[in-house]
Amino acid sequence: MNIAEITPGSYVHAVFLVASVEVREARTGNRFLRMTRRDRAGATIDAVLFQVSEAQIAAVRAGQPYEVEGRADEFRNRVNIKIDRLEPSGETWDASEYLPRSTRSAEALTGSIRDAIESIESPELKDVLRAVIADPLVAERLPQWPAAKTRHHAWIGGLAEHTVEMLQIADRVARVYPQLDRDLLLAGVVLHDLGKLEELDLQASIVYTDAGNLEGHMVQGVRILDRALAATGCDGEIATLLRHLVLSHQGLLEFAAVTEPMLPEAIALHYIDQLSSQVRPAIEDVAAARERGVRGAMMRGPTAMRELYVRAED
Amino acid sequence: MNIAEITPGSYVHAVFLVASVEVREARTGNRFLRMTRRDRAGATIDAVLFQVSEAQIAAVRAGQPYEVEGRADEFRNRVNIKIDRLEPSGETWDASEYLPRSTRSAEALTGSIRDAIESIESPELKDVLRAVIADPLVAERLPQWPAAKTRHHAWIGGLAEHTVEMLQIADRVARVYPQLDRDLLLAGVVLHDLGKLEELDLQASIVYTDAGNLEGHMVQGVRILDRALAATGCDGEIATLLRHLVLSHQGLLEFAAVTEPMLPEAIALHYIDQLSSQVRPAIEDVAAARERGVRGAMMRGPTAMRELYVRAED
Amino acid sequence: MNIAEITPGSYVHAVFLVASVEVREARTGNRFLRMTRRDRAGATIDAVLFQVSEAQIAAVRAGQPYEVEGRADEFRNRVNIKIDRLEPSGETWDASEYLPRSTRSAEALTGSIRDAIESIESPELKDVLRAVIADPLVAERLPQWPAAKTRHHAWIGGLAEHTVEMLQIADRVARVYPQLDRDLLLAGVVLHDLGKLEELDLQASIVYTDAGNLEGHMVQGVRILDRALAATGCDGEIATLLRHLVLSHQGLLEFAAVTEPMLPEAIALHYIDQLSSQVRPAIEDVAAARERGVRGAMMRGPTAMRELYVRAED
Amino acid sequence: MNIAEITPGSYVHAVFLVASVEVREARTGNRFLRMTRRDRAGATIDAVLFQVSEAQIAAVRAGQPYEVEGRADEFRNRVNIKIDRLEPSGETWDASEYLPRSTRSAEALTGSIRDAIESIESPELKDVLRAVIADPLVAERLPQWPAAKTRHHAWIGGLAEHTVEMLQIADRVARVYPQLDRDLLLAGVVLHDLGKLEELDLQASIVYTDAGNLEGHMVQGVRILDRALAATGCDGEIATLLRHLVLSHQGLLEFAAVTEPMLPEAIALHYIDQLSSQVRPAIEDVAAARERGVRGAMMRGPTAMRELYVRAED
Amino acid sequence: MNIAEITPGSYVHAVFLVASVEVREARTGNRFLRMTRRDRAGATIDAVLFQVSEAQIAAVRAGQPYEVEGRADEFRNRVNIKIDRLEPSGETWDASEYLPRSTRSAEALTGSIRDAIESIESPELKDVLRAVIADPLVAERLPQWPAAKTRHHAWIGGLAEHTVEMLQIADRVARVYPQLDRDLLLAGVVLHDLGKLEELDLQASIVYTDAGNLEGHMVQGVRILDRALAATGCDGEIATLLRHLVLSHQGLLEFAAVTEPMLPEAIALHYIDQLSSQVRPAIEDVAAARERGVRGAMMRGPTAMRELYVRAED
Amino acid sequence: MNIAEITPGSYVHAVFLVASVEVREARTGNRFLRMTRRDRAGATIDAVLFQVSEAQIAAVRAGQPYEVEGRADEFRNRVNIKIDRLEPSGETWDASEYLPRSTRSAEALTGSIRDAIESIESPELKDVLRAVIADPLVAERLPQWPAAKTRHHAWIGGLAEHTVEMLQIADRVARVYPQLDRDLLLAGVVLHDLGKLEELDLQASIVYTDAGNLEGHMVQGVRILDRALAATGCDGEIATLLRHLVLSHQGLLEFAAVTEPMLPEAIALHYIDQLSSQVRPAIEDVAAARERGVRGAMMRGPTAMRELYVRAED
Repeated sequence: MNIAEITPGSYVHAVFLVASVEVREARTGNRFLRMTRRDRAGATIDAVLFQVSEAQIAAVRAGQPYEVEGRADEFRNRVNIKIDRLEPSGETWDASEYLPRSTRSAEALTGSIRDAIESIESPELKDVLRAVIADPLVAERLPQWPAAKTRHHAWIGGLAEHTVEMLQIADRVARVYPQLDRDLLLAGVVLHDLGKLEELDLQASIVYTDAGNLEGHMVQGVRILDRALAATGCDGEIATLLRHLVLSHQGLLEFAAVTEPMLPEAIALHYIDQLSSQVRPAIEDVAAARERGVRGAMMRGPTAMRELYVRAED
Repeated sequence: MNIAEITPGSYVHAVFLVASVEVREARTGNRFLRMTRRDRAGATIDAVLFQVSEAQIAAVRAGQPYEVEGRADEFRNRVNIKIDRLEPSGETWDASEYLPRSTRSAEALTGSIRDAIESIESPELKDVLRAVIADPLVAERLPQWPAAKTRHHAWIGGLAEHTVEMLQIADRVARVYPQLDRDLLLAGVVLHDLGKLEELDLQASIVYTDAGNLEGHMVQGVRILDRALAATGCDGEIATLLRHLVLSHQGLLEFAAVTEPMLPEAIALHYIDQLSSQVRPAIEDVAAARERGVRGAMMRGPTAMRELYVRAED
Repeated sequence: MNIAEITPGSYVHAVFLVASVEVREARTGNRFLRMTRRDRAGATIDAVLFQVSEAQIAAVRAGQPYEVEGRADEFRNRVNIKIDRLEPSGETWDASEYLPRSTRSAEALTGSIRDAIESIESPELKDVLRAVIADPLVAERLPQWPAAKTRHHAWIGGLAEHTVEMLQIADRVARVYPQLDRDLLLAGVVLHDLGKLEELDLQASIVYTDAGNLEGHMVQGVRILDRALAATGCDGEIATLLRHLVLSHQGLLEFAAVTEPMLPEAIALHYIDQLSSQVRPAIEDVAAARERGVRGAMMRGPTAMRELYVRAED
Repeated sequence: MNIAEITPGSYVHAVFLVASVEVREARTGNRFLRMTRRDRAGATIDAVLFQVSEAQIAAVRAGQPYEVEGRADEFRNRVNIKIDRLEPSGETWDASEYLPRSTRSAEALTGSIRDAIESIESPELKDVLRAVIADPLVAERLPQWPAAKTRHHAWIGGLAEHTVEMLQIADRVARVYPQLDRDLLLAGVVLHDLGKLEELDLQASIVYTDAGNLEGHMVQGVRILDRALAATGCDGEIATLLRHLVLSHQGLLEFAAVTEPMLPEAIALHYIDQLSSQVRPAIEDVAAARERGVRGAMMRGPTAMRELYVRAED
Repeated sequence: MNIAEITPGSYVHAVFLVASVEVREARTGNRFLRMTRRDRAGATIDAVLFQVSEAQIAAVRAGQPYEVEGRADEFRNRVNIKIDRLEPSGETWDASEYLPRSTRSAEALTGSIRDAIESIESPELKDVLRAVIADPLVAERLPQWPAAKTRHHAWIGGLAEHTVEMLQIADRVARVYPQLDRDLLLAGVVLHDLGKLEELDLQASIVYTDAGNLEGHMVQGVRILDRALAATGCDGEIATLLRHLVLSHQGLLEFAAVTEPMLPEAIALHYIDQLSSQVRPAIEDVAAARERGVRGAMMRGPTAMRELYVRAED
Repeated sequence: MNIAEITPGSYVHAVFLVASVEVREARTGNRFLRMTRRDRAGATIDAVLFQVSEAQIAAVRAGQPYEVEGRADEFRNRVNIKIDRLEPSGETWDASEYLPRSTRSAEALTGSIRDAIESIESPELKDVLRAVIADPLVAERLPQWPAAKTRHHAWIGGLAEHTVEMLQIADRVARVYPQLDRDLLLAGVVLHDLGKLEELDLQASIVYTDAGNLEGHMVQGVRILDRALAATGCDGEIATLLRHLVLSHQGLLEFAAVTEPMLPEAIALHYIDQLSSQVRPAIEDVAAARERGVRGAMMRGPTAMRELYVRAED
């Protein structure tokens, strides 16, 4: 049973994911659970469970599938479910089935990253990056991880796609400015957001991990890098520079950079990152608006979080 | 006689440019002129003229050559000149002889810009840009104008060089994001800083014009654009978008943008501009430091106005 | 049929303006239109049109009157209309009939502006301002245009009223500081917000035009000024100063000024503008609160967007 | 002996004020005093006293006249004095003899303030202001006090002159906006900066008092007001509003306002204060530059602390 | 009748406090009152009164008990009351019965403050603080007043509890840094927030007084201090320093400090205040979340207004 | 030969440290070295070496002792040395001989830190901290390292002293708020600044290391912590919390915190750090001023970088 089929009054019996869950307290002092549930098609519906026990509160976890029985109701033109029975389901759900995903294949994207690494001339740097890419966490997650929770490339494969876009621009920037160390710049692009593999998790939706909140992806990214540096015996200045590229890529302290960029390559990395992470969501927002028929009008870009103008003429 | 030849105590008789001039008042209430003078080799020396008349104060203008007679003195390890006689010189000085200049020829740079314009597909847009480039002010000044007073590409030919760097990056960005309107993006790159042709003047050094201070190069750039739009009969949405690209290229109001970018192409333009205007000075600062023998050390980049690290190893 | 007469359940057949319109997508993937409609008395009501075709989406434009048939419903204590039939109406609606308007007549306000212009001593400046005021766009719109969308003087005739308030204060400021160039200050007051005539449009409500969003009223105001300068052959320093007054009147870059004020008259203009645009909405907010019976209490001024205290005693 | 007469090498024996004094420590560990001294003509000269005893360090106070014996020397084109003997002088110096002063007489200025107070209609408010003006501190200091240390109206009589300028503008503002309580606005103008009478002191130069630094003139001004309120038995809402006008006149917390303006009259007061305190120094800076012969040039206004343009034509 | 007993459809007849009240205008132009009402158990419920007269609008005041008759309705899962009859009640309500209160007794808390005062060594300072604590306003309100409206220690007795926490920390800080004047630091702690006794009022809920909004608690606190200084004849430097401690305790102008701390003791006071006012609400928020069963999760702390992490393990 | 003995004209032959060195270019294009040199008493003197070879430029490094021969000169009342001969010296210099140092012994300070660690109740946490303190880098450097370059506790032993001050305050804070996890708070204090051991180096003066500039002490501190976590097998939530304490102790992103504090203990840690790092330099600055005889005056605290008031009375 899909959520799209539910209409007010209908009896509901299905397995849904808990996308989010909150404990609320009614005016009477009784607690109830307020959840958002998701089906495999990606549609969501609100649900409430009254007369909930302490055990149930402890048992219901976001990101897990549960069997649900109840009745659909309508509130503010939105259908919701009053749940009568709620039990953990034995089913295994794969987030990759119902989250949006890149239009480019994981193989193509990781292949492009691998090609860029092979184009690095310094044997030492190439070794480090090969080790990074072979790190079990990276090998498993990079093909499917998103680059952010909502802001940009927030889809399956988004991190690899963001990285590939940046590699293509970085390649040109290194040609325009031959004084830049192309090897270092490309290494910076590959490394800069790898901490997202630990900062974010793929559950029913893209979520921050607790360690991601408490440490941040730049520190987590340096830990991944440090493993590769140790594995390849790389240290000294070049190791410090690689860490600096990761730690400074957000550009300014108030944008959460750990240090500000102090190498020409680090400055370039920051702006190449901005190009990809600011232009792409604006492109997506405008395309979605045009799809809805918007023409010749201002709109608030929901992903870019900017005012955007949708052209009247093509 | 070149400034490098002047030693304390020597008699000076030469024609120098007045690079800057200030009226000062001594404790006794007498006024005197404090000038910086420049020779054709680009070297500068301070000079003072005591017992100055109102007429002389009115007559001495920065950017003009004057015949000078006086004696060299030393103060704080710097040689200066106490002027006895100062008269306007009949010589004509050409700033392009003694200001630093791009390593690429004006012909090559403007040729690249012309090629980019010819690669635009929209006939209407191509016409506008051809008209812009044929505008007498643009035709005369673009080959030699700097892009800024001190911050980046502050040399003869700097504006064209900055534009060409951006065109090369923009070309790649348009390929990475085929949803972008390449024509519009390239037009934005060509147009974005043309107002600098009025905002800055080439005298003994690069200076802001009064109109540049009072209006700003974005408004001046729109005026140049408006002439080309009128000449080609282009108006409507496309004219507004071109103006928007010029007015928004500084990105944020606090960076002096007149409006913030509201088109994907305007966002891309802003970050491509940042790439060129932030990376290039960092490259130059590091190269100059290495030239002085600096290795493995932090330094304050005098042009980039950032802390920069000069690598120990190559 | 007026909106005030509609009650839940009643059948509706009337001509209403579309004040705003959005395309929404239901959970089922079907699109529908969500509109706010306005009658001639200024009252508004929400309306929804389900099963909408692409043609209808493209045809419904804010600011136009449409004939509507449907049934009134109630949701959250608000009546709305479920539309069955929607067709463009042949009626012509005049925004000036149902938007709030200044308590002073358009003739009196524009007369005061004309008097101020005639009091200017410099013949050159007086000619420029006469040309500005005779510009067809200005002549047609100034008598009725508002000064802003919501923040201050946001009513028919508001721009002229704001200008007159400022002229009265500027006249006194010029007397208190005889060193100020009164002609220049008064010219600045008349010119400073004329770009609002292009930045804003009078439709069902006051709206920003696309060109207003993409260029901003200061650049648009300079274009109006430039026409008058060309018509009267005025150029040189005085033309630059007039442009500067327009471009700097918002005072600080972060308040969207294009340049910061660099003339005593420009500084005065900025603070006189602040006086009118900050004091007037506070006066209006307090008066409206007192009208509602508020006394001796703090309130959030909805127009002034400040905390305001309404006095207990008169 | 005046400072203007001192030339390098000359023997100096005169009574000078100590305008400022610092204890410095030489590389050898010996302490010395570095002073700026002022004569009655307002000229200043640096002076050093080596081999200074603890007793002398404790005895030398800024703002007091001392008899000085020593020899003039030259350093960086500035004459200074190496002091051999330094003793307190029995002379009494009156700051008003050598500090700059308003071009308008103290009588005329305080007369204008008194007239404004008499024009207040509310008997209660008029009584409070009469009591304020009769307060011994106010009566003694208002005729001669400056409005600031350096920023604006920093001369003898400057506070009264600033107040009178504001009263003239406030009178007009109250006419333009008859909804404002003219009595309250005028009272606010008279009261707003009275705390400067305690925050600043007139010594050899205008200085901040310690209490001024530690409490600030707004709190000090409220204390003066509170005395008048107590004397006239005024309390309740009107007393709170008067305090609010004083405490909020700087407009924003980051400009050191104690609270932000919450009355239309308080908002008006803030901008009228800005008009006087921002426009007047710009006028003075431009006038001083023109006096020095500057025309058609940008300059940094030393008092206004802004970039200012000095016009080429009159 | 308690609010918890009201269910949709039930007839309501009870005495409730008006916690807040707003005048609203219906689309028809009719006014109605929208109120939040509170019972003695602290529960709240919304209520509406339609067809309200001007007299009723003027008569209904927040913080007063009214007898209410009407019928309960449901809207968005919340029960509200449509009032038929509303009359002032003769009952006297004591806020202290239904607002949250400190877990420590008023006697214990004020006793600790008194002990701290007695531990002060300087007789002069001890006298001032004894006079402060004996001030009728302080004596009456300190035992029960909250420290803030919502941000921290926002309960009955909260101000005394906040003060005692700070005294305990200050005592240690004075030991760690024996160079600090312990007497002055402790005096600063006792005095710093006493203005809250006038800034806040205890009605149905904790509210800002009008004078509190218009003057701020720092200025009000200095007035309380000034009474004690006058009573004990204390003035001179020590009086100024005490005022400075009160006026500077918020640390930075943008945090509403009247002056920034200029004494080591004032700097210490600011950070001790931060410790208590930032750490305590975070502790409370985490405890409340754990109470609701939250473990191993991020949450928005409703009082601390920060993101907080609730640990998984104890 | 000590620097204090050098007088203008004297012949100099001694071994001095190079405290800092710059390559400068004379107007003639010749390069010269400008150095600050330091003797064992901590005194400094400027020195210049003209006609310098590329080899010498490369050979001279800050922080190393060199044998110097030359002649003393005077410039701006400062003695400097024109160097004739400069050679590396075989001497070994120990920074700890001539830098300022804590008044408390290294043994006492590290003993207090050890005691605090032993007072931790959780065996797991105690093990981690014992491992941290036994880490070779920590064991070697903690007894002597400074806490900062200039801002606070910038002396030998300063880091340990800063830590001990904070431990004493934290101990009290944990008692005032028993809900805080005392173990975690104390661990945070010990760990928070350990990265300074790598960020700073003790050479002729306290300097930032290149890795310190490029990575920052918070990331470096986490690396030290990670070694101890690995050594003791501690991971999971507690490891993440310890890293969070280190990464968030600077409180706000704009103060360079890597993440903002999300635990009550992290918030407490931040303010305890502020107490020690802000109060201590103010105490030192005021004490130094009193030592110089300053009384009853405002001053700019050179270390605290704040305006400070030095009391007139004790």
